[in-house]
Amino acid sequence: MNLKKIMDIAKRRGFFYPGSEIHGAPAGFWHYGPLGTTLKRRIEEAWRDFIIKEEGFYEVEGTNIMPERVFVASGHVKSFADPLIQCIKCKSLHRADKLIEDVAGVFVPERVSLEKFDEIIKNNLIRCPSCGGELGETRFFNMMFKLNVGPTEEEEFAYLRPETCQTIFVDFLQVYRSMRAKLPMGIAQIGRSFRNEISPRQGLLRQREFTQAEAEIFFNPEKIDDFSSFEELKDFKLNLHTLEEGETRKVTLEDGVEKGLIKGRLIAYYLAKVQKFIISLGIPSEAIRLREQTDEERPFYAAQAFDCDVETPLGWVEVVANHYRTDYDLTSHMEVSSRDLRVIEDGKKFIPHVWEISQGIDRTLLCVMMNGYREGDERGWEWFAFPPNIAPFQCATFPLVSKDGLPEKANEVLHLLRRFFDVYYDKSGSIGKRYARADEVGVPATITCDYQTLEDDTITIRDRDSMSQVRVEIETLPQALLKFFGGERLETLGEPLQ
Amino acid sequence: MNLKKIMDIAKRRGFFYPGSEIHGAPAGFWHYGPLGTTLKRRIEEAWRDFIIKEEGFYEVEGTNIMPERVFVASGHVKSFADPLIQCIKCKSLHRADKLIEDVAGVFVPERVSLEKFDEIIKNNLIRCPSCGGELGETRFFNMMFKLNVGPTEEEEFAYLRPETCQTIFVDFLQVYRSMRAKLPMGIAQIGRSFRNEISPRQGLLRQREFTQAEAEIFFNPEKIDDFSSFEELKDFKLNLHTLEEGETRKVTLEDGVEKGLIKGRLIAYYLAKVQKFIISLGIPSEAIRLREQTDEERPFYAAQAFDCDVETPLGWVEVVANHYRTDYDLTSHMEVSSRDLRVIEDGKKFIPHVWEISQGIDRTLLCVMMNGYREGDERGWEWFAFPPNIAPFQCATFPLVSKDGLPEKANEVLHLLRRFFDVYYDKSGSIGKRYARADEVGVPATITCDYQTLEDDTITIRDRDSMSQVRVEIETLPQALLKFFGGERLETLGEPLQ
Repeated sequence: MNLKKIMDIAKRRGFFYPGSEIHGAPAGFWHYGPLGTTLKRRIEEAWRDFIIKEEGFYEVEGTNIMPERVFVASGHVKSFADPLIQCIKCKSLHRADKLIEDVAGVFVPERVSLEKFDEIIKNNLIRCPSCGGELGETRFFNMMFKLNVGPTEEEEFAYLRPETCQTIFVDFLQVYRSMRAKLPMGIAQIGRSFRNEISPRQGLLRQREFTQAEAEIFFNPEKIDDFSSFEELKDFKLNLHTLEEGETRKVTLEDGVEKGLIKGRLIAYYLAKVQKFIISLGIPSEAIRLREQTDEERPFYAAQAFDCDVETPLGWVEVVANHYRTDYDLTSHMEVSSRDLRVIEDGKKFIPHVWEISQGIDRTLLCVMMNGYREGDERGWEWFAFPPNIAPFQCATFPLVSKDGLPEKANEVLHLLRRFFDVYYDKSGSIGKRYARADEVGVPATITCDYQTLEDDTITIRDRDSMSQVRVEIETLPQALLKFFGGERLETLGEPLQ
Repeated sequence: MNLKKIMDIAKRRGFFYPGSEIHGAPAGFWHYGPLGTTLKRRIEEAWRDFIIKEEGFYEVEGTNIMPERVFVASGHVKSFADPLIQCIKCKSLHRADKLIEDVAGVFVPERVSLEKFDEIIKNNLIRCPSCGGELGETRFFNMMFKLNVGPTEEEEFAYLRPETCQTIFVDFLQVYRSMRAKLPMGIAQIGRSFRNEISPRQGLLRQREFTQAEAEIFFNPEKIDDFSSFEELKDFKLNLHTLEEGETRKVTLEDGVEKGLIKGRLIAYYLAKVQKFIISLGIPSEAIRLREQTDEERPFYAAQAFDCDVETPLGWVEVVANHYRTDYDLTSHMEVSSRDLRVIEDGKKFIPHVWEISQGIDRTLLCVMMNGYREGDERGWEWFAFPPNIAPFQCATFPLVSKDGLPEKANEVLHLLRRFFDVYYDKSGSIGKRYARADEVGVPATITCDYQTLEDDTITIRDRDSMSQVRVEIETLPQALLKFFGGERLETLGEPLQ
């Protein structure tokens, strides 16, 4: 497997492709075609069900454009910047940390000074990778997209939000009050974020516009261990990679908290939810780790932070950032807005603490595709092993041949199934070609109408993964498929075909 | 009913409210709270089911930021502008057409020249509404938000898209090919659009960032009447308000096409789909009209255009624009990109024509709220008559009192129903207060556990609209609610209470 094969299928079959391609496709902007749009939406819906609804969180939807003061408060105006360096000779621009890593193999953490960059570049004799010329001084480039709102130049600036969570912080009190809520309270949002990356790369992994699913859980810091849901999952095993231990091993929630590896039961519970969610997308547990961030990686306000990484042919890819943001955000917004964002609970007035779950949806989708990709088995074509709950199409109906009333019958089945599933009809090419096309986009079950269908109203279901088939009555087909998608073995649902 | 009452409930209960309010809430940006987010998402899902899925359209998802060439091709760089006028004395800015309409009562259509504006202002002796000063000359202000992509100032500009449909035009050939499609083919997108309005107003009706649901149906213009779905709806009555007739009357699709009021069967069919969709949101047919645009309103490229308007206490509000865009868009993108966007079908190579359905989701939501608002009946409180398919919560469970095991029982019912519906639990305040709170956010069915529940495992269902109640066994509750939401009368589903 390599990324290029995935990208080829993605474009050819309409999962995703460079945006505005006929007009030159500026780097860092990708569009989703019909299959990718459905796959992405299903991942979002799965997140909504598993994280928002199961946890009783409140979902909000804010604007992408937000006024400057929001990002003065959040700190982005001052410090959401990448180190940028320009070649004195050819004027080409480079991201200093990436350049140093690529050329000298030195990893530069996020929080070093400009002087440090210049020093490393000098000491390692790094020159322009484009022309070999001398490099200028490193400067910071703010990665937010800035724009004017209203018809005059003098008005306050606004920005496209670089993360969705700022909506949640500025709306916190509004939601807390209007929902008559009590802590712990989760507020979540699924939406776009925008970062003016200097060097967008690796397709969906580093885009200038992308989708995040973020949840902020507000809680009383004195009650971080007073969290009843913990009991349900206390024996669940996290794939924990802590700073202290330096390697990944299975740790129960209970052990993790008792040994002080995780700063509280609430945190342990939500780490487990995240790991379970990634597994529900068809990614095997052994390809998931919860890696504690190092002191240098961790933002200054975070008391603890774990990246949920997925192992792929590209290496470990971070798909969910989990941060204990303490009271940093609400305190900052309070100061800049002069609004009191404290709550009164348990006889005290205080600023709630925040645990954040921040998932990159596009990255998750790419990991789902990379992990689901299969090639080299007996069937002789590439295919995707998407779980039925997120597959773009759950089934397809085929007439064995395009005559003798079989297309009409397969169309009837299509209409029957449409009420329950995402399904398409295909009659072009040999039945083998149609299986191949269906496998290539990860359709879990394909239904064929053949001559026996005309006699006894039965059809065959083919299981994408095992390629085995069973014969089932049309009448019971929706029920059989529901069971199959729910995890029952195909062989138990009908008469196996030889 | 007035808009202020809706806005009050919207903010108090968390439907929607001014965005980034703690930081000053710049005009034209609204956030949705938990109830509004759910209501909005359900409207979008209803659109997806009724327009995209039922019609077999392809859904895509593009970026909000698109390169300048897209909007050079679309014509927006040149002419997507509002007439702007500034007071010479106090420097305040005004939208010239609105100012003329407000002050002189003169309606100015969209396509008049700058000189014409100045002439009307002069002839009507219009002065600055803020200070009475003299007004300067009218100029055009481009309403697209402009931004720089990448770290240098010299790079090509980009814009936030002012309409979602441009994604569809630039992706047309990619989708047509990857889906192995044939005309007629629909491509749809639900997403954000951005317009730097000079004077945002009326809450959700004219925002600077808003959500559109757009479908572009590509077809062979020679086959505009060769459209088999037409048969299904040919006797459906459109509320047609044509230029020719100047008033709204019921016209069947068949009559509309035969009498030449509608330029083709494909168009008539999709007008019917739009009218039916609005009805499915609980808006009565008599509050809907399909008003043909006048020659002055209609964009120059449109061969025919109908606004689908909804009657509200604010007057008629346009919620869906329906345009016969001919081959304008694909031709323009072909010219600017030098890419051949023609298709070969029926033995000919040609540029497909386009019929567009463009729905404003936020406006639709506001119309749903205005039309669903009820006050002044015997119950003595305000409420919303949302249809069950789009209500933010479909049901709520209450214990009659907060003791004797009733809260536990009501919680059990909550968990049972959560698998099927959006439901919440409420135990605070008198049962009457809880009914009032539920009615106020349009919950169609409320379930109460009382002392009899402990004896025989039955609960009561209260119908929001009639306030009548029936007693039902918990075991059959989900089924009973599904039937009730499907349209069956509550009285037929259990034992009526006196």
